[in-house]
Amino acid sequence: MSTQRAVRLSDVAAVAGVSKATASKALNDSPVVSPATKARVREAAERLDFRPNALALSFASGRSRTVGLLTHRATATFSRPVVMGAILRLGSRERAALVFDGRIDAHRDMTESVRTLQDRRIDGLLVVGSGYARVTPSITHHFDVPVTYAFAATDDPEDFVFLPDNERAGYLAARHLVERGRTRVAHVTADADDLAVRRRAAGFRRGLAEAGIAPLVTLHGSWRREWGEQAVSLLDEQQPRYDAVFCGNDHIGFGVLDALEARGRRVPDDVAVVGVDNWEEVVIDQKLRRLTTIDLDLMGVGRVAADNVIEPEADGGERFVEPLLVHGPST
Amino acid sequence: MSTQRAVRLSDVAAVAGVSKATASKALNDSPVVSPATKARVREAAERLDFRPNALALSFASGRSRTVGLLTHRATATFSRPVVMGAILRLGSRERAALVFDGRIDAHRDMTESVRTLQDRRIDGLLVVGSGYARVTPSITHHFDVPVTYAFAATDDPEDFVFLPDNERAGYLAARHLVERGRTRVAHVTADADDLAVRRRAAGFRRGLAEAGIAPLVTLHGSWRREWGEQAVSLLDEQQPRYDAVFCGNDHIGFGVLDALEARGRRVPDDVAVVGVDNWEEVVIDQKLRRLTTIDLDLMGVGRVAADNVIEPEADGGERFVEPLLVHGPST
Repeated sequence: MSTQRAVRLSDVAAVAGVSKATASKALNDSPVVSPATKARVREAAERLDFRPNALALSFASGRSRTVGLLTHRATATFSRPVVMGAILRLGSRERAALVFDGRIDAHRDMTESVRTLQDRRIDGLLVVGSGYARVTPSITHHFDVPVTYAFAATDDPEDFVFLPDNERAGYLAARHLVERGRTRVAHVTADADDLAVRRRAAGFRRGLAEAGIAPLVTLHGSWRREWGEQAVSLLDEQQPRYDAVFCGNDHIGFGVLDALEARGRRVPDDVAVVGVDNWEEVVIDQKLRRLTTIDLDLMGVGRVAADNVIEPEADGGERFVEPLLVHGPST
Repeated sequence: MSTQRAVRLSDVAAVAGVSKATASKALNDSPVVSPATKARVREAAERLDFRPNALALSFASGRSRTVGLLTHRATATFSRPVVMGAILRLGSRERAALVFDGRIDAHRDMTESVRTLQDRRIDGLLVVGSGYARVTPSITHHFDVPVTYAFAATDDPEDFVFLPDNERAGYLAARHLVERGRTRVAHVTADADDLAVRRRAAGFRRGLAEAGIAPLVTLHGSWRREWGEQAVSLLDEQQPRYDAVFCGNDHIGFGVLDALEARGRRVPDDVAVVGVDNWEEVVIDQKLRRLTTIDLDLMGVGRVAADNVIEPEADGGERFVEPLLVHGPST
C-alpha cells in the first residue's frame, strides 16, 4: 500500500492552470465555470488520481453520506437480520449508519432522537420496526430527507414501507408440496390471532386451491418445537392419512420431524414437511440441513429498504420482498 | 414536536454582540478569541439552545463522528453479535458506522477499503474478525486514527484487541458445578485442535483443580447436537457414575439433555449439564430455557471495542471480556 502524500486540490489546480477556487467549483459542477474549464480540471483530477477529502465534499454538497437508522429493538430475533442487511447495504454504497436503538416507542426519547438526527444532517432515515403486526407511528413529516420503513407498518399510507411476504411464503410452500404430488396436506401453525399466521395460512390455501386441493386440517398452537411434536399425535388421531405438513415456522417443523421419526414414519416418503424462516441457516455455519423451508429474506428486506432511502422509488406505499424456497431433505 | 425555525449562528452572534466569524471561533475554542468573549458567546448559545449543524461542526473540528467498521464476514454466527454490539454502542454515543464487510482478507479489496476509509476521514476504525483462531494481519499502521480489533487476533502485540474469554468460560462452568456439589464431572466437547475447545477445557480443569477435583474424562467430537447424544452412550459405557457434564457448546448440551431424558436420567438430580454460548437467548424471544450456560457476551465484546475506538485505553494489547453464567433448570 502506498504511503506517498495524498494529491491535493492545489495540485489539480496547478496542473489544470486554474486557481484553487476555480478547480473546486469545477469539481462541484458549479454553473459559473465554463464546460471547457470543467473538462480540463476533471482531466487533471483523473490523471493525478485526485480523491477529494470526503468531509470537504460533504460540506460542499450539503450531504453527509450518513443515514439515520432508528430501531425499536435491533437485537430481537427477527429485527436483527433486517438491521444487518440494511447496514451492510448502506456500507457497500459507502453510506455510514447512525443507529438509534430502542427509541421508537417512548415519546420523550423519540423527540430527542428526531432532534439529534435533524442536527446531524443525515441524508435519509431508515426506521426498522419489529414486524407488521405492530403499527409504528409515522415520523416522516419531521424530516426533510427521505424516510423509509422496514419490517414495520405505519399509519401513513404514503410512507415507503418494505415488508417480508408472509402470504407468498405460504403460497410457495403449497405450490412446492403440490409439485411433489402431495394432496392430503395439513397445516400446523401458531395462534390464529397472529397476523403472520393468518397471512401464511391464506397464501397456503391459495396455493393449494390453484391445484383444486383444500387443506386437510389446520391446527393452531404456539411457535414452539414442542407444539410440533404434540401436533403429530393430534394429526395421527384426526387425519391419519396426511402425506404432508406445512409448519408455520421451522421450530414447529423440527418438532414434527422428531415426532415422525419417533413413530417410524419416513420423511419425505410417507410425509413431506416444509417450515418457514430458514432457521438452520442462522443456527450454525456448517450443518446438515433437515428441513425444506421458506426463507423470508429479512436481510433482503433491510437491503431494499436501504436502497430506497438512498434512492427513493417514485411512489410510497407497501412493498413486499419475495421469499425463497430453500430445498432440504424433508420434501 | 416543535416545528419552529432552528436557531442559527447569526442569532447567537447578534445576542452576544459579536460578528458571526467571532461567534464561530469562540464556539470552536479558538485561541484568538478572548476568554471573556468566549464566555459571552457560549452563554448566548446556551440561552438560545443553539445546536450547531453537525456537519459544519465536523468540518471545523476535522472530526466526522464516523467510525469505520471493517469486517471479514459480518453475518457469520458469532461475528454477528459482535458487529451488532459495536454499531449499537457507536450509535448510543452518536457515532455513525461505515461498514465494509468481507474486505479484510482479499488483499486487493483491502487496499481499496483502506484508501476509501482514509478519504472518508473516519475518526477511528474497528476491525471485527471471526474469532481468535484466525490471525488478522494488522492494518493499524495505515491509519492515523485509533484502530481497535474485536473478536480477532492480530500479528502486532501493540494492537488494541478485545476478545471473549474462553478460558474463563470453562472456569465459571467448573466453579458452578463444584458449588452444586458435583465431583464426578465429564467434559464433552469438539475437536482438540480448536483453540476455543482447548481454552474452555483448560479453564474447566483449573476450576475443578481449585476444588481438588480432576475431570472424569474428556470426550472430543464435533460442535453438533448429534455428538452430544452419542457422547452420553460413550459416557454410560466408560464412566457410568458421572454426576455432571460440561459441554463445549449448547448444541452438544441439547444433545446430552435429549439423550439423558431418553434414558430416564433426571436432570439435574442425577446429572447436571452446563453448555456455552447462551444459544437459547438467540433462538427465539419467548421460550422455556432448558440449559444452564456460559454466555461469552459477544455483544459486550463489540461494545467495549467500540468504546475503545472512541476513547482508546492508554496501552494496547489483548483484553478479555468477562463471560456470564446464565442459570437454567439443568443445574
